[in-house]
Amino acid sequence: MKTPLRSVLILAVGVLTSATFLLADEGMWMPQQIPELAARLRAMGFEGDPAAFADLTGQPMGAIVSLGGCTASFVSPEGLIVTNHHCAAGALQYNSTPERNLLVDGFLARTREEEISNGPGARVFVTTSVKEVTDAITGKIDPKLDDRRRYELVDRRIKDRVAACEQGGLRCRVEAFFGGLKYFEIAQLEIQDVRTVYAPAAGIGNFGGETDNWRWPRHTGDWSFFRAYVGRDGKPAPFAKDNVPYQPARWLKLQPAGVKEGDLVFVVGYPGRTERQQTYAEVQETTEWSFPRFIKTSEEQIAILEALGKSDPALQIKAAGRLRGLNNYLTNRRGMLEGLVQGGILVKKEQNEKELAAWIAADPVRQKQYGDVLPALAALQAESERTRERDAVLTSLFGASTLLNAAHTAYRLSLEKAKPNDLDREAEFQQRNWSRIREAQERAQRTLDPRIDRALLRWAMGYAAALPADQRISGLDKQAGLTPGMTKADAEHAIEACLERLFAGTKLAEKDVRLGLLGETTAQIGASEDPIVILALALDPLFQANRDAYKRRQGAASRLRPRYMQALLAKAGGLVAPDANSTLRVTFGTIKSKPGPDGIRWEAFTTLKGIEQKNTGQGEFDAPKRELAAIQALRSGQLKTPYLVPALGDVPVDFLSTVDTTGGNSGSPTLNGKGELVGLLFDGTYDTIASDFLYDPVNTRSIHADARYMLWVMSEVDGADRLIQEMGVGR
Amino acid sequence: MKTPLRSVLILAVGVLTSATFLLADEGMWMPQQIPELAARLRAMGFEGDPAAFADLTGQPMGAIVSLGGCTASFVSPEGLIVTNHHCAAGALQYNSTPERNLLVDGFLARTREEEISNGPGARVFVTTSVKEVTDAITGKIDPKLDDRRRYELVDRRIKDRVAACEQGGLRCRVEAFFGGLKYFEIAQLEIQDVRTVYAPAAGIGNFGGETDNWRWPRHTGDWSFFRAYVGRDGKPAPFAKDNVPYQPARWLKLQPAGVKEGDLVFVVGYPGRTERQQTYAEVQETTEWSFPRFIKTSEEQIAILEALGKSDPALQIKAAGRLRGLNNYLTNRRGMLEGLVQGGILVKKEQNEKELAAWIAADPVRQKQYGDVLPALAALQAESERTRERDAVLTSLFGASTLLNAAHTAYRLSLEKAKPNDLDREAEFQQRNWSRIREAQERAQRTLDPRIDRALLRWAMGYAAALPADQRISGLDKQAGLTPGMTKADAEHAIEACLERLFAGTKLAEKDVRLGLLGETTAQIGASEDPIVILALALDPLFQANRDAYKRRQGAASRLRPRYMQALLAKAGGLVAPDANSTLRVTFGTIKSKPGPDGIRWEAFTTLKGIEQKNTGQGEFDAPKRELAAIQALRSGQLKTPYLVPALGDVPVDFLSTVDTTGGNSGSPTLNGKGELVGLLFDGTYDTIASDFLYDPVNTRSIHADARYMLWVMSEVDGADRLIQEMGVGR
Repeated sequence: MKTPLRSVLILAVGVLTSATFLLADEGMWMPQQIPELAARLRAMGFEGDPAAFADLTGQPMGAIVSLGGCTASFVSPEGLIVTNHHCAAGALQYNSTPERNLLVDGFLARTREEEISNGPGARVFVTTSVKEVTDAITGKIDPKLDDRRRYELVDRRIKDRVAACEQGGLRCRVEAFFGGLKYFEIAQLEIQDVRTVYAPAAGIGNFGGETDNWRWPRHTGDWSFFRAYVGRDGKPAPFAKDNVPYQPARWLKLQPAGVKEGDLVFVVGYPGRTERQQTYAEVQETTEWSFPRFIKTSEEQIAILEALGKSDPALQIKAAGRLRGLNNYLTNRRGMLEGLVQGGILVKKEQNEKELAAWIAADPVRQKQYGDVLPALAALQAESERTRERDAVLTSLFGASTLLNAAHTAYRLSLEKAKPNDLDREAEFQQRNWSRIREAQERAQRTLDPRIDRALLRWAMGYAAALPADQRISGLDKQAGLTPGMTKADAEHAIEACLERLFAGTKLAEKDVRLGLLGETTAQIGASEDPIVILALALDPLFQANRDAYKRRQGAASRLRPRYMQALLAKAGGLVAPDANSTLRVTFGTIKSKPGPDGIRWEAFTTLKGIEQKNTGQGEFDAPKRELAAIQALRSGQLKTPYLVPALGDVPVDFLSTVDTTGGNSGSPTLNGKGELVGLLFDGTYDTIASDFLYDPVNTRSIHADARYMLWVMSEVDGADRLIQEMGVGR
Repeated sequence: MKTPLRSVLILAVGVLTSATFLLADEGMWMPQQIPELAARLRAMGFEGDPAAFADLTGQPMGAIVSLGGCTASFVSPEGLIVTNHHCAAGALQYNSTPERNLLVDGFLARTREEEISNGPGARVFVTTSVKEVTDAITGKIDPKLDDRRRYELVDRRIKDRVAACEQGGLRCRVEAFFGGLKYFEIAQLEIQDVRTVYAPAAGIGNFGGETDNWRWPRHTGDWSFFRAYVGRDGKPAPFAKDNVPYQPARWLKLQPAGVKEGDLVFVVGYPGRTERQQTYAEVQETTEWSFPRFIKTSEEQIAILEALGKSDPALQIKAAGRLRGLNNYLTNRRGMLEGLVQGGILVKKEQNEKELAAWIAADPVRQKQYGDVLPALAALQAESERTRERDAVLTSLFGASTLLNAAHTAYRLSLEKAKPNDLDREAEFQQRNWSRIREAQERAQRTLDPRIDRALLRWAMGYAAALPADQRISGLDKQAGLTPGMTKADAEHAIEACLERLFAGTKLAEKDVRLGLLGETTAQIGASEDPIVILALALDPLFQANRDAYKRRQGAASRLRPRYMQALLAKAGGLVAPDANSTLRVTFGTIKSKPGPDGIRWEAFTTLKGIEQKNTGQGEFDAPKRELAAIQALRSGQLKTPYLVPALGDVPVDFLSTVDTTGGNSGSPTLNGKGELVGLLFDGTYDTIASDFLYDPVNTRSIHADARYMLWVMSEVDGADRLIQEMGVGR
């Protein structure tokens, strides 16, 4: 499935040049670029007004929202939202117990009163404006400013803009596009009370599981419904019992007549990140180091979590979300790596960069303008690679242990809070984020278990112990008595002793203790005797040193990368979509079958028949009995349904299209040419994954759940007629 | 792969009624039926003369030959023959040693002198005439004759016809069609010196092995080349160094331009056996007893042979052919059973028979004509079922041990030779078969090993020991000291003691001893002290009793079944093809893709790309390095080939068609509308297997090796240009 994005990305600027067309259906377009694509859209049969897509508060754009990692859309005037089942996994897990596992059994609120809170931290973001602010961010910078100061200046200008923008009560961001060639300020309404309304059972919402993930033919009913709530005054407010449904200005109309092969479809959403404009050196590091390391470490963590899950069902629930994420990314990264290596993307990238270098060298003006850029970016890259093993291990220590990370977050917050001017604080610790930081610790309680924490920290410390002598994490070495060149057995012994001390002494597994720590001063935290707090402080100097180095490199990149992009764009000519950066984008294509392995054509639609064929009654292929009964009733003629498509002889389940999407697009509405909802984007095919690095015009396909399957399940299997009526679909 | 037939089948008569059309592409037509299908052929785009197919000595029919289990065709005026690789497995095994395994490495004779004998018993049959002889066989039979005598009469009339026919130096058979409603006399030229000319490596000829067997997409290069040799006088003669290539009157022209999706293709060959006209009770026994038993016993024998093969490479070669056959039939029977049960064929058969019974009952004339037939056939069936467990075990004792079977054959031969009139002898022991019986023992030496014989006999005796008290094989019980109700451990102990005695004392593993035995009289054999001969004699009384019962039932069937067929045909109306019975048939259809599992379409052609995709470099997916290098050379543009099809962007490998084929069709030439060779039939898709019982007009597909792949491999991989030139294909 597409990867929901949990973190907001930092780098990357939309620009309109001329109006020639790119290959095929490539392009995660900024909404304001769409009117320039009018000729292409008309050629594809679009009869509407392309300018509609540039109006963020109009129809359909005003209905599209972000969940902060996934996309969703309003589908009723009463704040009903549809997104993917896998985007609801966190909320379902939050509300699950060993006795009542909503992730497995699904959930349906029979009345509004039964709709359950997704917990603190759950958000719905409605983009209300996108404004170009390039001059405000990068205009008039003294070229002699050193890189570190340059970073601070850009960072401060961004904070200034955000602060000014948020005066109006909205949530704002300033995002770089085209590697900082352009900046845009995005304002969003931030709804804070989000509730789960309906999710199918895992046997529908996650049918096929990891086996079918990123695969075709697919038979997953990957949808869930939320509802946005606001205070009685109509303004965003944290969860409160007497909040009322939010009334969006726009919502999508569901089109039960559906779509067919060859139809034009749009997907509007928040794609997270693509790397199509990276340098060859960057792609090379990803191919040769980052992804192989990621795959290895993910496999190891999965093995640890699966073993823990088998030992105790409670741990299984707590680890479920993390495991699903690890597995999903693991498959994703394997697919990326296959595309980069066997698929020949790395070789093509090298070739492209050679051509760019030759194009620059071929003209004295261009040489003067861009001649230094590629070597300078390569040097920056080389610098960061020098200590990458150590730096990755440091990151994984914090990633492994929720407790260690909580302690470190509290310490960093105390440092930043001490600064009197909010604009001087690190962006993530500005006052606007304080309540989020608390909410994160509250949510963490549902997935936290010292047994998981300890097992993963043991694993991460094992990597630290094995680091070469010139790349040690000295804070950890001292705390755990590790030295370079220790035997593996000695290191394991030392780590086990350290863990015993840490987990015997810590109180951070208690939520109130962690929340209390978030209120303490630097001095108070420095005086803590909690061994995990002490470890976090011991690790902080290296963390800060790395962060300083990062800021300096980012300052340099903010000088260099816009010029690299200028060269790339000038060479390419025509209209180019910027790399995805978690901002609102529009992509379009057609519903189309796909060449599979030799001798196989993957058809554009799957049907209920495939559920019958794949169902084994257990594990990942365990369709609910009531669904199988409904299929039987359909086959026997006992049941009639308007969602059966005569040409298919069956109810459609999922379909393929050529739209260009990536992680973060999960839950995006699939719209027909009239802007009506006909499906939900939820995945891409395996060989599409590497399109994040280089778009493949022949093989790239997105996978959508068909709205007719959703309606059929809602009416014939799950009894969600209340919602069908609310969406205005009559039988 | 299609199952080559090793035995000649006994039962089943072609009849032409009116000229309406059957569903889809069903029908393994007798050549003389083809002119009646002219309208249908023209509708499919055929521009030739349908009457050509009725001329068995004309073009193309005169070029089609039988290998006695597989089909093949002449492809040059010098007796060059093309068939499947899997039809050449026996010949390749016969010429293999542990040092030089032709089954694995392939074989290419660089000159005529290097062409190697396929061994004694290898045959090429050229059908020269087919004559209806129904009256001669079934005319004027006293209706009061009892069934046993009726059998003898029909049997004697057949022998008389065969003897008269063979006066001309040909090999003749009289075959029943439509269950004995019609009889035809078939005369064949029998060429006895057959030599292997070329076979690709297993990595081409058996690429995909058992994993891909009966599957699509397929990438098997299932071809081999033989050459027919005759005496210097041009007449058939056993192998002799100075024999000369046979010069056939007709040979197929190879069409290197190939075919495309939608094209009409013909397959001419010797399909072995279909059961579309069986009664419900017969299909039911097959479904509920025969096939499940067959699957279980095959799995057990495969396990025994695989274990032996692992213990010694020499045993692996000796067991290879038997294993390949067991595995192939195992998959076949599983597919049949799936079609019969899950595919609903058994239910449909029951329905069809109820309709037939109702149709008979609905009319007094019909009731008088046919009313007794179904119950009487059911009673015959029930009778044979009473001792089926015992009878199957007796058969498997002889099947398990080549030595035991050799002893029993010699004993039966001695009994029959004692009869002065050849026409009184059992058909298989008539003088015309004596040399074949010797050849079989000569060939057996290559696959025979007492370790295999003993292991399989142990297994079969285990079944005999477990038989119920009322179905014992008393001859074996006495020899091995088995009693009903013995514990399993006691039985195993007794069997082991018996085997020890049998194999310590027998000399039958020596070829000369077995050949000597074939020359002995009944008295001489009866005096033998060889313990395996003694066991064979002990088993013979039950064998003879079973054979008598069989003859009586066959006599009854020869009364009943023709009337059952008359009823079936009268009810069906129109032109109907008789069930396959190893006689020459013509089938036709179009090259067509096929619906796969939900969301998948199986394309009509596979290409070299699939070989690259599937190749793992080991086991069943181990394409020769020189083939992979040739594909690389093609990809890089170093190699040009006329066999690359622009629409596919590659060289085609295998293709699907709707032609109706079964086991025995293996090696059949696939002809275009002009009668030119464009491929070789070698298999059907898995869900096609059960079409032997009921043709499925939607899913039935045959699998063909594309002649262009064959030519590409011959020229670019195997260096068989001598043969390409001989076939008259220029580059």
